[in-house]
Amino acid sequence: MRCIDETAVADIAVGAAILGTGGGGDPQLGMLMARSAIREHGPVPLLDPAEVDAEGFVAPIAMMGAPAVAKEKLPSLHPLPAIVEEFAAAHGRPVSHVMPAEIGGIAALIPIAAAAVLRLPMVDADMMGRAFPQLPMLLSSIAGVPTSPLVMGDEWGSTVVFRGRDDQHTERLARTMCVEMGASALMALSGVGGSRLRSAIVEHSVSLAERLGQAVRAARREHADPIDAALALIDGTRLFDGKVVDVESRTTGGFTHLTATMRGLGADADQECVLRSQNEHLVALMRDTTTAAPPRLAAVTPDLIMVFDTRSGEPVTTEQLRFGARVTVAAAPCDPRYRSADALAVVGPDAFGYDFGYVPVEDLTGTTVGVRS
Amino acid sequence: MRCIDETAVADIAVGAAILGTGGGGDPQLGMLMARSAIREHGPVPLLDPAEVDAEGFVAPIAMMGAPAVAKEKLPSLHPLPAIVEEFAAAHGRPVSHVMPAEIGGIAALIPIAAAAVLRLPMVDADMMGRAFPQLPMLLSSIAGVPTSPLVMGDEWGSTVVFRGRDDQHTERLARTMCVEMGASALMALSGVGGSRLRSAIVEHSVSLAERLGQAVRAARREHADPIDAALALIDGTRLFDGKVVDVESRTTGGFTHLTATMRGLGADADQECVLRSQNEHLVALMRDTTTAAPPRLAAVTPDLIMVFDTRSGEPVTTEQLRFGARVTVAAAPCDPRYRSADALAVVGPDAFGYDFGYVPVEDLTGTTVGVRS
Repeated sequence: MRCIDETAVADIAVGAAILGTGGGGDPQLGMLMARSAIREHGPVPLLDPAEVDAEGFVAPIAMMGAPAVAKEKLPSLHPLPAIVEEFAAAHGRPVSHVMPAEIGGIAALIPIAAAAVLRLPMVDADMMGRAFPQLPMLLSSIAGVPTSPLVMGDEWGSTVVFRGRDDQHTERLARTMCVEMGASALMALSGVGGSRLRSAIVEHSVSLAERLGQAVRAARREHADPIDAALALIDGTRLFDGKVVDVESRTTGGFTHLTATMRGLGADADQECVLRSQNEHLVALMRDTTTAAPPRLAAVTPDLIMVFDTRSGEPVTTEQLRFGARVTVAAAPCDPRYRSADALAVVGPDAFGYDFGYVPVEDLTGTTVGVRS
Repeated sequence: MRCIDETAVADIAVGAAILGTGGGGDPQLGMLMARSAIREHGPVPLLDPAEVDAEGFVAPIAMMGAPAVAKEKLPSLHPLPAIVEEFAAAHGRPVSHVMPAEIGGIAALIPIAAAAVLRLPMVDADMMGRAFPQLPMLLSSIAGVPTSPLVMGDEWGSTVVFRGRDDQHTERLARTMCVEMGASALMALSGVGGSRLRSAIVEHSVSLAERLGQAVRAARREHADPIDAALALIDGTRLFDGKVVDVESRTTGGFTHLTATMRGLGADADQECVLRSQNEHLVALMRDTTTAAPPRLAAVTPDLIMVFDTRSGEPVTTEQLRFGARVTVAAAPCDPRYRSADALAVVGPDAFGYDFGYVPVEDLTGTTVGVRS
């Protein structure tokens, strides 16, 4: 067993912003929250999923809402004890561990703060291996672990327990409440333990986020390319280098919808890249500006589409995408379980309203997928 | 102990529509639901509140939402078992009785159906002695019995448990969810038992509703005036006879807001009456049309303002108010506990945004208040 200290938090923040594929909110904010909680309550034990015994019961913690809002309305940790207490009561068993429900951005860091505040160990895993905007998109949901009972809380001390007929329904009810609570709210959901735990989670995603952060940090120190260093850990591929020329963003119904257009630079000077996002990046399209050829698909959900600041190697979240920014777009394969027909029905491009099907990123880029260590 | 059978349901429906002061939805609909439940599961035992022993725990049942919607989206009893089960779990004690949370309209009849379906006895009481549009307006709330945990359910089998910081907060969260659930939803709330029960309720309001219905029925049979017969039981006063000349109704945010204007007939030929309602009637204003004098207050919340069909004596709900209808407007004193300063801060005219204070109906009409038997 190891512990997450303040240094680890900084690395996880960078890695979680990479795995967050543009969503999950400002990791800087989450980092400050997690650091301050650790400073007050001490480092957080990080357990391998194999170390959770059969009686263990894990409370995955998440933040629902539009990232663009979370930036202005700072999340408060105040509701956490009441949320976890209601969650334990709703399941009729005590909570032994917390875990991030998704590994993207602030969503990976709030559970660390929660673990510190609640004095519970954290499991080195999450339920997406990335971030996605809706509850039924959790791998746990696809594997049959319901999100209900889901407990949401606000900073005024109110809690709401949802037991949806199914996860689509829970999503709809919880989203409505999240908008009422100010368009972002903390929650515990998808309670899981014992023998079902490991089939419902993406193992070691917290330590992967940490290694991504360490790799970026080491590359900078050694004047190597931090983007290449990060991509090497997740079988990622650079798709595009360019400059943001247009950003269209709209926050509605508890989501941030975004379309960003980038003009290529250097080797990509003849290219234009368009990203479409719903909290997270969903589609990257590329177009040769010297011809009238239609755009071609460069990467698509559920594979990871990531944007980095080309110069610093810092991951860029959707709400940080600014006109004139020099960015690098990259992609990496998702957890293989997201590529099943059942999963693609929930997280594939057609599930988000696009009129084309899923193509694995390695087929689009001609790269091969290795095995994540 | 007596039982509510199909005849009693018909009388209660009429009485509840009278006490519902325009709100509470179509009692005809509630009557059909309660009758059908009794036909299937047998009559419902009706207990005097004094018969509930100290270990008893009462689940008040209510419908939240805009009455105009309930008319189009028939309430389903399907969610009731899950609601009451979650309610018992949330309180950590079994439910021994049900009760209407308010006595107005359909809200008085759904608990009868619930009692039949759940095979639980019903307590002869409610928490308002009338109907009001918002949770903090329950006499129980004013007496310090929180509405939380409040359990709401929809016909698709989802339940939501609210624990608001206070009743204002619970109202806001539950109202949002009710709108998401289709602008009307069943719920259990304000769980109460033992020694606190009797301070939180209006006793014998179910049998009062029944006696009102019986009085109207007897008067019709005897060719007497059914309106006078009903008003005699609640110290009521006729305010106005006339014809509806204008109705403005708007359903928004889970409420039906209405302004109705009536031109006087007979002895009231020189009068105009304006009613303002939020689900329930809140204000009755009268104006002498032969002078330029400003309108004068005829009755105001929390006193009961009722509208009857002048010819049939049937109570008329807000959504039944139609251009050309011949109506009689009447008023009656509310439960005396609603006249305390604390209560008026929640249910008085200024609480609904009017710029005048409460005046008891007997001061406005020069009548005296007797004692309800």
